[in-house]
Amino acid sequence: MLRLNLTNILSERIGEQGVDWPGALAAHTQSLEAARAALWQRKSDPAEFLGWIDVPEDTETLRQVLRYRQANAWVQDLVVLGIGGSALGAQAVSAALGKGPVRLHFVDNVEPEPILALLRTLDPHKTLVNVISKSGSTAETMAAFLVFRQWLELGLTDWKKHVVVTTDPAKGILRPYAQAEGLTAFEVPPSVGGRFSVTCPVGTLPLAFAEVDLEGLLAGARKSNEQARAALEHNLPAQTALIHHLFSRKGKNIVVFMPYSTRLRYLPDWFVQLHDESLGKMRDRTGQEVRTGTTAVRAIGTTDQHAQVQLFREGPHDKLINIVRLLNPSENLEIPAVKGLEALDYLFGKSFFELLDAEAKATAHALAKAKQPNYTLTLEKLDAYNLGWLLQHLMWQTAFLGELWNINAFDQPGVELGKEYTYALMGRKGYEPLAQELRAEGVE
Amino acid sequence: MLRLNLTNILSERIGEQGVDWPGALAAHTQSLEAARAALWQRKSDPAEFLGWIDVPEDTETLRQVLRYRQANAWVQDLVVLGIGGSALGAQAVSAALGKGPVRLHFVDNVEPEPILALLRTLDPHKTLVNVISKSGSTAETMAAFLVFRQWLELGLTDWKKHVVVTTDPAKGILRPYAQAEGLTAFEVPPSVGGRFSVTCPVGTLPLAFAEVDLEGLLAGARKSNEQARAALEHNLPAQTALIHHLFSRKGKNIVVFMPYSTRLRYLPDWFVQLHDESLGKMRDRTGQEVRTGTTAVRAIGTTDQHAQVQLFREGPHDKLINIVRLLNPSENLEIPAVKGLEALDYLFGKSFFELLDAEAKATAHALAKAKQPNYTLTLEKLDAYNLGWLLQHLMWQTAFLGELWNINAFDQPGVELGKEYTYALMGRKGYEPLAQELRAEGVE
Repeated sequence: MLRLNLTNILSERIGEQGVDWPGALAAHTQSLEAARAALWQRKSDPAEFLGWIDVPEDTETLRQVLRYRQANAWVQDLVVLGIGGSALGAQAVSAALGKGPVRLHFVDNVEPEPILALLRTLDPHKTLVNVISKSGSTAETMAAFLVFRQWLELGLTDWKKHVVVTTDPAKGILRPYAQAEGLTAFEVPPSVGGRFSVTCPVGTLPLAFAEVDLEGLLAGARKSNEQARAALEHNLPAQTALIHHLFSRKGKNIVVFMPYSTRLRYLPDWFVQLHDESLGKMRDRTGQEVRTGTTAVRAIGTTDQHAQVQLFREGPHDKLINIVRLLNPSENLEIPAVKGLEALDYLFGKSFFELLDAEAKATAHALAKAKQPNYTLTLEKLDAYNLGWLLQHLMWQTAFLGELWNINAFDQPGVELGKEYTYALMGRKGYEPLAQELRAEGVE
Repeated sequence: MLRLNLTNILSERIGEQGVDWPGALAAHTQSLEAARAALWQRKSDPAEFLGWIDVPEDTETLRQVLRYRQANAWVQDLVVLGIGGSALGAQAVSAALGKGPVRLHFVDNVEPEPILALLRTLDPHKTLVNVISKSGSTAETMAAFLVFRQWLELGLTDWKKHVVVTTDPAKGILRPYAQAEGLTAFEVPPSVGGRFSVTCPVGTLPLAFAEVDLEGLLAGARKSNEQARAALEHNLPAQTALIHHLFSRKGKNIVVFMPYSTRLRYLPDWFVQLHDESLGKMRDRTGQEVRTGTTAVRAIGTTDQHAQVQLFREGPHDKLINIVRLLNPSENLEIPAVKGLEALDYLFGKSFFELLDAEAKATAHALAKAKQPNYTLTLEKLDAYNLGWLLQHLMWQTAFLGELWNINAFDQPGVELGKEYTYALMGRKGYEPLAQELRAEGVE
């Protein structure tokens, strides 16, 4: 159960830094209803990249994933070669809910030392490599694949059963390679972009090896679909999108995403990509220069009360803060009394969860006292169902915001130039003129 | 060797988003020289919290730390109980340079499930618990200590040799407790605040168990002291502080800290605390309301090219981006050629480090093309000396900024109210009126 507490964004609580919520909701009903209708209508067109809406309904693919996992009980180490959207979802969910015995390793960079260190700890006989790239042309992922593939081939006679590919069903260079080599391959649906891919095999295949309850995860995501289809007063993602829209229009260009949970430590990273890459756009759908995008900031409670909260309270009024709180622990732990430390007696006999929860509520209220707008999403508990719901909720929120701002939330044109410069600096054929241009500008 | 490349902040490169550097340097010479003089002069007063300047000179304390580490060769797991500045420094440096065989665990939150999960993997006979709190009153750290102390006592006859305390030499509740129980205790110098404590035993004790070259770390920090004492043209931290000052005054309220290294993955978290908690202040030294503070954002290259760079390039011009780049790898790895993947031939025979480095340069240049100001700090390589230099450099940069903004960069008054609310919600004696007030406001 996902719920919204927006007390601390209201002008009656935080004055002119806040908003008149019923008024704002009424004023934006038309645009949000239009956004909802547009999203549900466009979803049948693969070119709109709204495939993530229907993926949680695809139980047949999930069954294939689970069958593959069962058929590979020998795996002790799963190495995921993927970057950005090909890694962050599985990383966030496995940190929150993963159970052994299979160890997951995410290779999401090309720094040589950590890759060498990882290789030296692995036994190829017990290692499965999952290479994830929709196009197969992601330089970092493919560089890693070239090395891991060779490492497997040198160490094994049957290296092919130690590789599983997740890629486009038809396009790109990994699909034909997998077919030619006879490698097992799963599909990234053409209509699903990387940052919206956690419920398709990009996320579910690694998560199956982490023993995550994938039926629960997908059921939770479907629950968010239900809400996103509902009228505005029951439409949670439309409401949180509106909150973000209102505070962006009030000049707050920073959004803090702050779960009170170490298990959710990678969730902000997943959210940062989803939010920043979707909404940071130079041009709107009409081609006009708009330079949209609020910047998402990662924080973890209570940890960041001792790092970032000083600024969040006393610094400029340039932020909207989204706290995520769990209502129930799965296991609790009592704080024992200790002789000689009676100054801490307010902790004796209390539980860790009580302390965690008190700090979350205390911080939200202290932020409000400093007129720093914040809202809280609560999850009934941290399980696959609730987390799946939250993930899909945040995807819907992002999609609604894209509609409100009339931008394409599903592309990333701004990363192309950096890729071309990289090709030029790496001496790729055809990029000689660009390499020359770079040299002339002192970049080599 | 730490060097600064500021090409991509210059107006000749990025137009009106940039600055005229020689002009700005000339215009600020007086204020920066005054800041330098003030910091070096105030350092003898412990109340100014500038003890971090001299700590790297304290080789006697370092010898004690190293002797303690040698005397405890039995340790297999070191559990650090600390939060914020009591954890982030050791976490950042150990991730970058730590070598086994001792495993380090940082307990920096009060979520019950991860603490229980950790306890279940540990053998008390082989575990050392380092509790770090200057005051001994940090609720999270002390709650964890109460549990770990009990766990050790229940499992061992000689639990006291499994605890080492790092705290104030005189004040607070941990010092008398350590004395009464006969526990080994190291000192946090009274003039050193948490976020400036990485070179004192707060950082060095855990790092000794991670086999980090601590002499190198401190020598690097001393090198930065040399620069911070030098005249402006050789004073690297004064120069980077000026860069931050100039872009803050140009309305850029976000600073991105982006090392191109997975080994440096926790360095941005350390920097975020240092920067945000030091510079996010409501009042200046005269008591006037100023609400200073730019918000530091964590990013890792190349990884975040696939997450945040879309926004950094195409989003609003509200950021200053600080890239950190290594000039040499400690070990490199060649990318092999693979038949069937000739589309990737530009990678064949190249090295991972070449690719990493090309992407860093490509991204910096692509950001500049989008008029997004960015500067690069280069480290000759990733070792203790260079990292110690960088850490101390960033501390100096922060101190210079505090001077330029006439704020106290060494306190954190904004976190007090949240602590009091927590006490009230936890039913601490004396906080009944506040608890009642909170109930009246719907917080319970």
